[in-house]
Amino acid sequence: MKTFSVTFLPEEKSVEIAPGKTIIEAATAAGVPINSICGGDGVCGKCRVIVRSGKVTAEPNEFLTRRDIQRGVALACQTYPDGDVVVEVPLESRIGAVPRLAAEDAARFAPISQWVGEGAPYAYEPLSRKDYLQLPPATLDDNISDQERIYRELRRRRDIPIMQTGLSILRQMPGLLRAGNWRVTVTMGQRGGTVEVVQIEPGDTSSRNYGVAVDVGTTTVDAHLVDLGSSETVGAQAKYNSQISYGEDIISRIMYANTDEKLNTLRQCVVNDINDLIAGLTVETKTRLQDISYVMCAGNTTMTHLLLGLDVANIRREPYVPSASFAPVIRAAEVGIKINARGLLGVVPSVASYVGGDLVADVLVSGMNDSDEVSILVDMGTNGEIVAGNREWLACCSASAGPAFEGGGITCGMRATHGAIEHIAFGERCQTAECGVIGGGKPLGLCGSGLIDLVAELLRMGCIDRTGRFVPEVCGARLGRDGGQSEFVVVPGSGTALGRDIVISEADIASFIRAKGAIYTAAEALLRHTGLDFTDIRHVYVAGGFGNYLDVRKAIRIGLLPDLPLDRFQFIGNGSLQGAKMALLSRQAFDVMEKRIAPNMTNFELSTDPQFMNEYTGSLFLPHTNIEKFPSVEREQPRIAVR
Amino acid sequence: MKTFSVTFLPEEKSVEIAPGKTIIEAATAAGVPINSICGGDGVCGKCRVIVRSGKVTAEPNEFLTRRDIQRGVALACQTYPDGDVVVEVPLESRIGAVPRLAAEDAARFAPISQWVGEGAPYAYEPLSRKDYLQLPPATLDDNISDQERIYRELRRRRDIPIMQTGLSILRQMPGLLRAGNWRVTVTMGQRGGTVEVVQIEPGDTSSRNYGVAVDVGTTTVDAHLVDLGSSETVGAQAKYNSQISYGEDIISRIMYANTDEKLNTLRQCVVNDINDLIAGLTVETKTRLQDISYVMCAGNTTMTHLLLGLDVANIRREPYVPSASFAPVIRAAEVGIKINARGLLGVVPSVASYVGGDLVADVLVSGMNDSDEVSILVDMGTNGEIVAGNREWLACCSASAGPAFEGGGITCGMRATHGAIEHIAFGERCQTAECGVIGGGKPLGLCGSGLIDLVAELLRMGCIDRTGRFVPEVCGARLGRDGGQSEFVVVPGSGTALGRDIVISEADIASFIRAKGAIYTAAEALLRHTGLDFTDIRHVYVAGGFGNYLDVRKAIRIGLLPDLPLDRFQFIGNGSLQGAKMALLSRQAFDVMEKRIAPNMTNFELSTDPQFMNEYTGSLFLPHTNIEKFPSVEREQPRIAVR
Repeated sequence: MKTFSVTFLPEEKSVEIAPGKTIIEAATAAGVPINSICGGDGVCGKCRVIVRSGKVTAEPNEFLTRRDIQRGVALACQTYPDGDVVVEVPLESRIGAVPRLAAEDAARFAPISQWVGEGAPYAYEPLSRKDYLQLPPATLDDNISDQERIYRELRRRRDIPIMQTGLSILRQMPGLLRAGNWRVTVTMGQRGGTVEVVQIEPGDTSSRNYGVAVDVGTTTVDAHLVDLGSSETVGAQAKYNSQISYGEDIISRIMYANTDEKLNTLRQCVVNDINDLIAGLTVETKTRLQDISYVMCAGNTTMTHLLLGLDVANIRREPYVPSASFAPVIRAAEVGIKINARGLLGVVPSVASYVGGDLVADVLVSGMNDSDEVSILVDMGTNGEIVAGNREWLACCSASAGPAFEGGGITCGMRATHGAIEHIAFGERCQTAECGVIGGGKPLGLCGSGLIDLVAELLRMGCIDRTGRFVPEVCGARLGRDGGQSEFVVVPGSGTALGRDIVISEADIASFIRAKGAIYTAAEALLRHTGLDFTDIRHVYVAGGFGNYLDVRKAIRIGLLPDLPLDRFQFIGNGSLQGAKMALLSRQAFDVMEKRIAPNMTNFELSTDPQFMNEYTGSLFLPHTNIEKFPSVEREQPRIAVR
Repeated sequence: MKTFSVTFLPEEKSVEIAPGKTIIEAATAAGVPINSICGGDGVCGKCRVIVRSGKVTAEPNEFLTRRDIQRGVALACQTYPDGDVVVEVPLESRIGAVPRLAAEDAARFAPISQWVGEGAPYAYEPLSRKDYLQLPPATLDDNISDQERIYRELRRRRDIPIMQTGLSILRQMPGLLRAGNWRVTVTMGQRGGTVEVVQIEPGDTSSRNYGVAVDVGTTTVDAHLVDLGSSETVGAQAKYNSQISYGEDIISRIMYANTDEKLNTLRQCVVNDINDLIAGLTVETKTRLQDISYVMCAGNTTMTHLLLGLDVANIRREPYVPSASFAPVIRAAEVGIKINARGLLGVVPSVASYVGGDLVADVLVSGMNDSDEVSILVDMGTNGEIVAGNREWLACCSASAGPAFEGGGITCGMRATHGAIEHIAFGERCQTAECGVIGGGKPLGLCGSGLIDLVAELLRMGCIDRTGRFVPEVCGARLGRDGGQSEFVVVPGSGTALGRDIVISEADIASFIRAKGAIYTAAEALLRHTGLDFTDIRHVYVAGGFGNYLDVRKAIRIGLLPDLPLDRFQFIGNGSLQGAKMALLSRQAFDVMEKRIAPNMTNFELSTDPQFMNEYTGSLFLPHTNIEKFPSVEREQPRIAVR
């Protein structure tokens, strides 16, 4: 069959494709990441590329101006090569490379000894362990089977009620025992109630046993390599979830995965991502794949379903039923994850279609499930997940916040990666804007925390009113128009990386207000369901990669977080990753998630709560229609009023 | 590549073989069973065939006379076709077809309700069960995951601490639940401490759940199909173990299996046999393979190792170490057994290299492990396995008896199948011999029980003395010579199926005496090790297919069984098969074998027992050098004396 070559710049990566394939399909095949929020439907306009040579056919669309088309700009998902082509993927269309934060995150986390080990809440008992055995050689007086000889020694060391060894290891066992002169290292993995012999090696390899904790995020996949003997985190890697090419948010991916084949495509994406991360970790730390015996993943329900290849269709159909909340521990190879050939894969259990293992892990990390005091925990993402409770009870809910916190659906929005404005402060009369840019240099756009800062600053300066509309007399020269839209110029083109203005529109602010309103109202509704209000809350935990940059004071000012004393707030960072790591190192921690946290979290479906919609409408102000809910904001900003 | 066609008569089965292959290899490929005791080494002379047309090259050998060669007789394992050939396999070289006894055995066994069910020692709780669930459809108020909805209902019905569902079923679960309109049948199999969901079907299929109990014998493979709902045995099939082509006894098979490839060949043989039997059972009973969810096998240690493909090399090397005595429950498909694709395979645990799961099953069936009285149990086969004990203790040993009981190594020996003399009684002065022939008609040879009868009768008549040598003045005309050997004509050629005399030689009698001596001495040695003697024994259980025809009185007379009152003896038939069936129907019965019988059987290696050899020598008389051990025989036969 005839094929066309598609070469991507600046990487100069090439790939052969069949006629009828789009440029975005070629990019996926070539491993070149391109933004696509709509999943290839041609309705988001984010996948702009520039055709440098070769002929293409493109579907008409509304995103490209005549000038764009003359310059060779095309939407990658709507454009079909007619021959060999060379395509440039500009910075703004690019899903960033490895986020810079992985290694820093690893260092930033409080040491694992705070959670696991002597004196800590959870006992050190890794899900996989290696024991070096010096066995007595078989004699006529002691000629039990090879398997029993190994079991006898293991059970002499500790209580292991149910042990199992697979056929392939039993087949090798006699040879290995004798090759090692009765000195072997046995790797044992916990699998449900059974301890499985995962590997037998001649000699002493007990110092080489690793696990990988993975946060499978909708946007980012984060992996830490953990030395299961010492509990130390020895490496960290992260990358974007390459499912993004098939849809930016959960719903668009679920809609994409409407056949077994497409479901498998998404599974393969995230499995490849995890394999890439693990490969990176082994190179970084000079570790052998065969010494990695366990992978523990946490993520939202859709992400873990896709990882395991489980049907996701019912997650988005009322009444929102996942296939499985408690996935079995399986062999990692069953889904294609490449570690030790018989290494195991566990998944932190989830609670409901929109309350995932990430939230369960967050709860574990926060410790709220072990406290007498009532806490609330907010995991902010495209889907906001909220849990309230204490050691007696746990209640949770979720609300769709839209992609604003992750930079989606915002004119100059972007993810929290290189070039993103993560915080901003205006000088007097908005004449100066002091921006903090991730990675330094000129900014490319606004990430979620930058957006929170920006809206809070606009409100503080009086540039917007409490409905989020611009106040032209205050905004002054910064206010412009693009078509029918008012736009506030945050950074003029002269100061940006792309030479274009970084702006925020009234529509952007409205999107953002809907996002923050959904989170706040969901938290409030959850408390109402449990007969409490915010004044009963002693601790507010904020989780999510997003939380790393969050200014609590400003988040309160715009009505995202409740108006409580600042010392009640605590960031727990990437609780999903940390919880997965705790599970790897402590069977007890995994058990607590499986047997105490996940099964005992009562989920309230807010879509069935008539009051939620009313209250949500009231939250679409800054900070809220009812300013009495934010007394500190009222005191601070007496001059803001509804027009 | 050039191939030759080999056609076997009378079946007219043909097969194409490469040059350099032997006729016995062709027969194996064609599925034509040919005797081969030596495993193809050309040293047993049992694989005689007649070349009816075509050219062959044969290795010289000592078994064929000039006349044989002129008639076209050849040893199948030493003969290579040089072109297309037609070969007849005579009756005497044929491994019989399906033994006729399978169905009769099934009927003859005491009803399973004697062991399993209400009022019986073991509770009815099959290793695999089907539950028909009418689930409440998911609603917004009850939207737990599909898996939990199923688990919740199952756990409402009974206590299932650890449940697991494999990925492939989880992937189908949502579709199946909705296809069945929330009414599904769940098949659950016990696997270690875990209950595994093996299958989910829409609608109510709970009346169709079957298990297969298999006795994997060195010689015969017996299978019963069990309705796991009703506990009824609904079908029975048996066939010869086709590993026989690679060696008649355990040791020759172990020696054959000295590479991974050859080990795999033997595994494939027995797996094919089991698949053939299961296919036969499904046809016989109109059952679907997918409704068979569990297979339970019992056999000696070597047989179960070969079934699982475990290394057998160390079984025959001092200090006689098996790979595994407690095999894990696995998916039957892992070894190639064809039932439900996710159906399970269990193996009754063994004790030592020569004390197998067959003996463990025998103990369960006998109930001796649950009695206050001391019993002894003898499983007679090529390898004699003996266990003594009560509810407090169990001790066991094994002794190689040689193939005499199974008709091997005896001039006119054959297995207990059609044409075998199973019992015999001489008239006054040996003038008449009344033979019971299996299947009726003219006899072909002598099986084990016929041999016991014959030797006992020869002794009673005074035709042989207590050393087993002929007394010519008593034998009279029945005594002849073949070469240097004295032979006693049991049935003259005129009365046999092949037209040749059925004879017994002094060498045959010597082989037989060694076999019975080994069994008796082993039992005695075992008791000595436990500080007991036969007078302490309240029950003697005799197991093995062989036991079906055994005349206890005669077995005592020749010193095979101890001289105890006849009412202490009990035949338990094929305990291996019955024990496997009990395990299928009662998890408790399986648990008792795994946790109480097998691990608590102390094995005595007689090869390290210096006294055993001495006593064995003393047993090489009829009934024994020390006649005081057999007082009833002494009273009955005062006229027998050592010459």
